[in-house]
Amino acid sequence: ASMFDFTEHPHRRHNPLTNRSVLVSPHRAQRPWQGQVEPASEEKKPTYDPNCYLCPGNSRAGGKQNPKYEETFVFTNDFAALLPDTPSFQQQDESDLALLKVEGVRGTCRVICFSPRHDWTVAEMSVDSLVGVVRTWTEQHRLLAEADYINHIQIFENKGQAMGCSNPHPHCQIWATEFVPTEPAIEFENMRAYKQKKHSNLLVDYLALELKAQERIVCENSHFVALVPFWAEWPFETLVLPRRCCRSLQDLDSNQQQALADIYRRVTCRYDNLFSCSFPYSMGLRQPPTDGKDSYEYCQLNMRFYPPLLRSATVRKFMVGFEMLGEPQRDITPEQAAGRLRQCSEIHYKHQK
Amino acid sequence: ASMFDFTEHPHRRHNPLTNRSVLVSPHRAQRPWQGQVEPASEEKKPTYDPNCYLCPGNSRAGGKQNPKYEETFVFTNDFAALLPDTPSFQQQDESDLALLKVEGVRGTCRVICFSPRHDWTVAEMSVDSLVGVVRTWTEQHRLLAEADYINHIQIFENKGQAMGCSNPHPHCQIWATEFVPTEPAIEFENMRAYKQKKHSNLLVDYLALELKAQERIVCENSHFVALVPFWAEWPFETLVLPRRCCRSLQDLDSNQQQALADIYRRVTCRYDNLFSCSFPYSMGLRQPPTDGKDSYEYCQLNMRFYPPLLRSATVRKFMVGFEMLGEPQRDITPEQAAGRLRQCSEIHYKHQK
Ligand SMILES: O=P(O)(O)O[C@H]1O[C@H](CO)[C@@H](O)[C@H](O)[C@H]1O
Ligand SMILES: O=P(O)(O)O[C@H]1O[C@H](CO)[C@@H](O)[C@H](O)[C@H]1O
Repeated sequence: ASMFDFTEHPHRRHNPLTNRSVLVSPHRAQRPWQGQVEPASEEKKPTYDPNCYLCPGNSRAGGKQNPKYEETFVFTNDFAALLPDTPSFQQQDESDLALLKVEGVRGTCRVICFSPRHDWTVAEMSVDSLVGVVRTWTEQHRLLAEADYINHIQIFENKGQAMGCSNPHPHCQIWATEFVPTEPAIEFENMRAYKQKKHSNLLVDYLALELKAQERIVCENSHFVALVPFWAEWPFETLVLPRRCCRSLQDLDSNQQQALADIYRRVTCRYDNLFSCSFPYSMGLRQPPTDGKDSYEYCQLNMRFYPPLLRSATVRKFMVGFEMLGEPQRDITPEQAAGRLRQCSEIHYKHQK
Repeated sequence: ASMFDFTEHPHRRHNPLTNRSVLVSPHRAQRPWQGQVEPASEEKKPTYDPNCYLCPGNSRAGGKQNPKYEETFVFTNDFAALLPDTPSFQQQDESDLALLKVEGVRGTCRVICFSPRHDWTVAEMSVDSLVGVVRTWTEQHRLLAEADYINHIQIFENKGQAMGCSNPHPHCQIWATEFVPTEPAIEFENMRAYKQKKHSNLLVDYLALELKAQERIVCENSHFVALVPFWAEWPFETLVLPRRCCRSLQDLDSNQQQALADIYRRVTCRYDNLFSCSFPYSMGLRQPPTDGKDSYEYCQLNMRFYPPLLRSATVRKFMVGFEMLGEPQRDITPEQAAGRLRQCSEIHYKHQK
């Protein structure tokens, strides 16, 4: 065992939230890359773009006009993947072993513009503006949770073309659904089982281990800690955990809202500084179902960042082949990734002189 | 229920192999796309490229020289993600609830060049040449299965830059591992449970349902059927199933090898013809573990194609945001995808006049 070097030898790490594993091949980081390079899209953007369907006052597809909003702005997605009025559909063969299982599902999709400024990104926004974003999330989450047909609310941000984002105007989405999607359902089940056996909260216990070890911590404030999880799949994946127990946005007081906005800015700013580019990622919040079926005390509010870049602004990690058929694989270790993110400044490279 | 239209209404489908679901939003297919477009890389390639490290006679990274091979050529990956001599590592806390679980893992990675011709792709190769590929897979699978420290053999092909392929020379990879990776482990467990309860084979029963329904079939020959699975995640995902029971490549006679080569060509040719481009995908074979712990009668050899394109040669589907945090989402239905693939010719567009 003393011969084993985690920065050198292939190993597998287990994710207790999903009960899945990731293959880590740290010796492989130096292989040459002749594959696809991402477009380095660093053209300067205007503060207002007359062709952007998210800018204040502009018309959206379908003809609706945006108000001249000054802070955040929320609307129902014009091309929503989920609709509130889908007719219900009953499966004939409901057996667990049925091979063609299907159910009709209801839901709604909303878009939240973070700011009237077309050229901003979270990394460049002020904490004050981001507090406005956190408050808007909280209000939307509360409103959607009140709807009888909604049982799960997924807030997420796709940032950058590499993450399928079709509009650079800073915004996020909410997909609220009748059903609890596959990934959260698996995580809640594993957290529930942990609580039942250990009489403690999985993510609270995990944060205590990380604060003791220190090697995967990226940055912290009085209410939140950002770290590269032990089981991270994406090269620079991060997980933001609250220091104290809180299940959802509804449990945050104004100090904690401020702290969440602060860490949102600091993590994304470190990302931009890592390769001096506008760093793409998908961000998502994990919150318990709103179905009222459980008190969900085994859950813990958390925020994740899944960024695709690996070596530079133009070379990303591809989750293909072995990753699709077998399991995710990563090259640098989570400890190495955390070390590099720890070294990044929290002053945005565009504002450094 | 009679009001429910699968081509119109959002619904969820269940994958009995993984026990996970996919959200289908068929009404959303027509939304405008302003996001990333893939480079349309249709430059004509030379039959031999002096800078390609897979062409016959050339030197590879690390200095080894390829022989002047004339059919297939196999070598150990110069930047293997897995190594046969990793020292063993024992976990201290082996409890099921341990939060930092890790294990050292051994394995090996091989590359199989399909042909000396740099400019070919599977879609353009002759069935005879592809029979050579199938025989090479079979031989490599047999040899690797004999190694005591190997318990699972993943054969896969990453085709195209969009799938992280760094070299267009036609080739595939084998990652052979001491451990059974997450995805096959989940599938084998679900197939085992099905067999135990139903006394029949999940994929054999599934194929019978599909042959009866006909609406998701793409093409077939006397030994194999290619179809878009009911639970497909990628827009034009396909699954190739054998008509009769066979667990691995070792169970195929020469007629079946020929039939597998035939369907490999026909599926990839239809893909290329769909958008008149060299269609990117990850292909993988599913075969049972080689650990000898079970007879694995509940398994069935199969081949999958996971292609990213959605609307054209340059507009792909992104599995991001909701897909990463929630569950996969698709726009066109599997039945629509199968219908479009069924209409494609099996004569390659480059050879049509
Ligand atoms: O081994 P390659 O072709 O260099 O690399 C490609 O396939 C591997 C196996 O699916 C992936 O881990 C890499 O991300 C991908 O770029
Ligand atoms: O809704 P958008 O931004 O048009 O689309 C983007 O996010 C969605 C939700 O993650 C994905 O399903 C799409 O593939 C992606 O392109």
